[in-house]
Amino acid sequence: MSEQNPLDLPEGDPFGPHNLPYGVFSPAGSADPAAGSASGSAAGSAAGSAAGAAGGSAPVAEGRRVGVRLGSYVLDAGAAAAALGSPYVSLLAQPTLNPLLAAGRRTWSDVRRALTTWVTVPAHRDAIRPLLHPLSDVTLHLPFDVADYVDFYASEHHASNLGRMFRPDAPAPLTPNWKHLPIGYHGRSGTVVVSGTDVVRPTGQRKTPADATPVFGPSAKLDIEAEVGFVVGAPSTLGTPVPLADFREHVFGLCLLNDWSARDIQAWEYVPLGPFLGKSFATSVSAWVTPLEALDAARVAPPERTEPLLPYLDDSAESASDGPGGYDLRITVTLNGEVVSNPPFSTVYWTAAQQLAHMTVNGASLRTGDFYGSGTVSGPSPDQFGSLIELTWNGRDPLELPSGKRTFLEDGDVVTLSAWAPGPGGTRVGLGEVTGRVAASR
Amino acid sequence: MSEQNPLDLPEGDPFGPHNLPYGVFSPAGSADPAAGSASGSAAGSAAGSAAGAAGGSAPVAEGRRVGVRLGSYVLDAGAAAAALGSPYVSLLAQPTLNPLLAAGRRTWSDVRRALTTWVTVPAHRDAIRPLLHPLSDVTLHLPFDVADYVDFYASEHHASNLGRMFRPDAPAPLTPNWKHLPIGYHGRSGTVVVSGTDVVRPTGQRKTPADATPVFGPSAKLDIEAEVGFVVGAPSTLGTPVPLADFREHVFGLCLLNDWSARDIQAWEYVPLGPFLGKSFATSVSAWVTPLEALDAARVAPPERTEPLLPYLDDSAESASDGPGGYDLRITVTLNGEVVSNPPFSTVYWTAAQQLAHMTVNGASLRTGDFYGSGTVSGPSPDQFGSLIELTWNGRDPLELPSGKRTFLEDGDVVTLSAWAPGPGGTRVGLGEVTGRVAASR
Repeated sequence: MSEQNPLDLPEGDPFGPHNLPYGVFSPAGSADPAAGSASGSAAGSAAGSAAGAAGGSAPVAEGRRVGVRLGSYVLDAGAAAAALGSPYVSLLAQPTLNPLLAAGRRTWSDVRRALTTWVTVPAHRDAIRPLLHPLSDVTLHLPFDVADYVDFYASEHHASNLGRMFRPDAPAPLTPNWKHLPIGYHGRSGTVVVSGTDVVRPTGQRKTPADATPVFGPSAKLDIEAEVGFVVGAPSTLGTPVPLADFREHVFGLCLLNDWSARDIQAWEYVPLGPFLGKSFATSVSAWVTPLEALDAARVAPPERTEPLLPYLDDSAESASDGPGGYDLRITVTLNGEVVSNPPFSTVYWTAAQQLAHMTVNGASLRTGDFYGSGTVSGPSPDQFGSLIELTWNGRDPLELPSGKRTFLEDGDVVTLSAWAPGPGGTRVGLGEVTGRVAASR
Repeated sequence: MSEQNPLDLPEGDPFGPHNLPYGVFSPAGSADPAAGSASGSAAGSAAGSAAGAAGGSAPVAEGRRVGVRLGSYVLDAGAAAAALGSPYVSLLAQPTLNPLLAAGRRTWSDVRRALTTWVTVPAHRDAIRPLLHPLSDVTLHLPFDVADYVDFYASEHHASNLGRMFRPDAPAPLTPNWKHLPIGYHGRSGTVVVSGTDVVRPTGQRKTPADATPVFGPSAKLDIEAEVGFVVGAPSTLGTPVPLADFREHVFGLCLLNDWSARDIQAWEYVPLGPFLGKSFATSVSAWVTPLEALDAARVAPPERTEPLLPYLDDSAESASDGPGGYDLRITVTLNGEVVSNPPFSTVYWTAAQQLAHMTVNGASLRTGDFYGSGTVSGPSPDQFGSLIELTWNGRDPLELPSGKRTFLEDGDVVTLSAWAPGPGGTRVGLGEVTGRVAASR
């Protein structure tokens, strides 16, 4: 424990009591056979293993517990609830966020209100202080058991850039359906890993028009996708769609997401049934889930819609939702420590509420732990593109970095996404970063 | 309990002691709030709810237990293990097959050998008889918690038929990648439901070239897909591919699968990222998982490969696998009780072992409960097509049935898939049927 009073956070700390993101951690020295060997750092990097994503069939290590981030500390939330006699101990003294996620919106608000009291009211200081662990001493885990994982394609600038690259002869960069529905597909939930987990370069088939037959080997076009992911808490009933206005009844919070992509594998496999092995090898998520309630000051109107929408997607009427559907999240992408892009999430065309309404309009049900990504976030200008394939225009214009020239990722490269959003009263709300290092193919 | 000695099964019963498929059931009268209201029948129909698919986050009803089918009875496998002092009680006295699935191949064999002894050795008859429940008295549930669900597209006849219909101007019915890799995509595991569950007609967007803008409403082209699904037991390590030869170390068994499809929704949404809402509303699986060990006599060589394969998919060498990769499963599709097709699984081009090797070649890990479908099984002749879109050639040639003319499914239609495979000594091995009724959109 630091000598400094950890509740006296620096003025303007983006992880102050106005934020309170949730994660799952093991304290220093706790035995956790499922955890990776690296420990977390104050910057929020973390290590875990695929076992953390194994859902109900994984053995849950005893050391794991729900934590709430405060500055560069983690509050043991279940222990705090127990120490203060809170009824929420049953939701917080858990090895995963799923019980809290399943509890629903009213409980999410009540728990957040209680936590705010615990960390701000001076009378609780002596009880809370011993329950704070320096981030640098803990191991961070995948915060929730991922049920289904869906990835959208909601940034108009990203989709247009890829259309220009891959369908140069098409009448328009966007496919005809793009402005009518948020295009998405299911990804692999079993390979969602927590920030800090190494990403092994995938191996597979690729074939360019110049190749007579497919070539096999490690991907030569390993890329990043800077995204925002939304975490579903409350489930829904099979056969019954979830309307736009119910978004905040079901979605608990959001986090940063790097949907690593092997462009060469994807290009050869994806017609006609979509991406598969080009994406399924790893998806990295932040160790911290920011509740939507912490982001009320960041809500903004989405971009102007240039095609009329069917009623189930039309968020232009006041009654369709309980506020603007966009979020003003300022993302930064670094490669080996150098900033390569600043994608603005506010420019994304389809909102998370529209994605949820679309995903369920056919009657598909939601489960606690469902997780869906926005798709790559790219702004209109080249320094706002959220993938290397856009930043280098499919390798034509390499990035010149101190660590060398880059078209796609090389073994040993470290990619980190971070972000902040406007908070109440001029504050900033920090999002937990997501970082990963590329390891050589096995 | 029947007066007839249930262990004296009729000669040649396809669910005799040479079969022993596993499921999960609740006995008559047990309270199970998550179960549907319908009860099973001797024919194997069953009812369940989406909660059965909710994995680790679902409350597991106390009445659920592992059962083994014997003729028209279910043996309470955990109770049998307890009665006979077997060490396998911890794997079998469970509300889901997942602990057994996770135990691995050697244990699967040992448990199967024990079960065979229990139901065939006369000395055990008095202990076993009271633990048999008539199928008509029990409720059958989703037998395992589904982790990731993947659907392949492995039948050459099916893929060619769809290519001819949808890409008539293409140089060939198959896409250029089709003979080089088993094309697949991830589906929604949260909407996998057990046989007997009603399927609510999905609502969504569709747009034909004749429509100026998308049309919204219940799908007008609801279809079936007759498939075989493979159940993964033993997990694998993230970053490390599973070779062809290790197929039977990881895959426990198979079952019939109806991957309901809304062709009109799918046609409008699927470019460029593949099927999404056209498939995600429901996938029905049999209540019974047949262990691969029961199907050794059904193993056959797959169709001749007409393109050379990369080494990780090449099953032509003896050393690549431990036997032929195909399975001779004879499927029957009925619509409102009338046989409409007899798809032969032996004609499917890509084997389940090749699908597993492909699915993991990029390093994607397997989890206990991963489930993958073959894609629609269609034979070469029109009475062997596994979907209505093929049987009616996209509605051009309606089926004339006693229940009326059909292009696609109407509300109230009941679709049932059943199958058998050659067993040892001239027996037949029955697969559990999968049935479902179409309910009107809500």
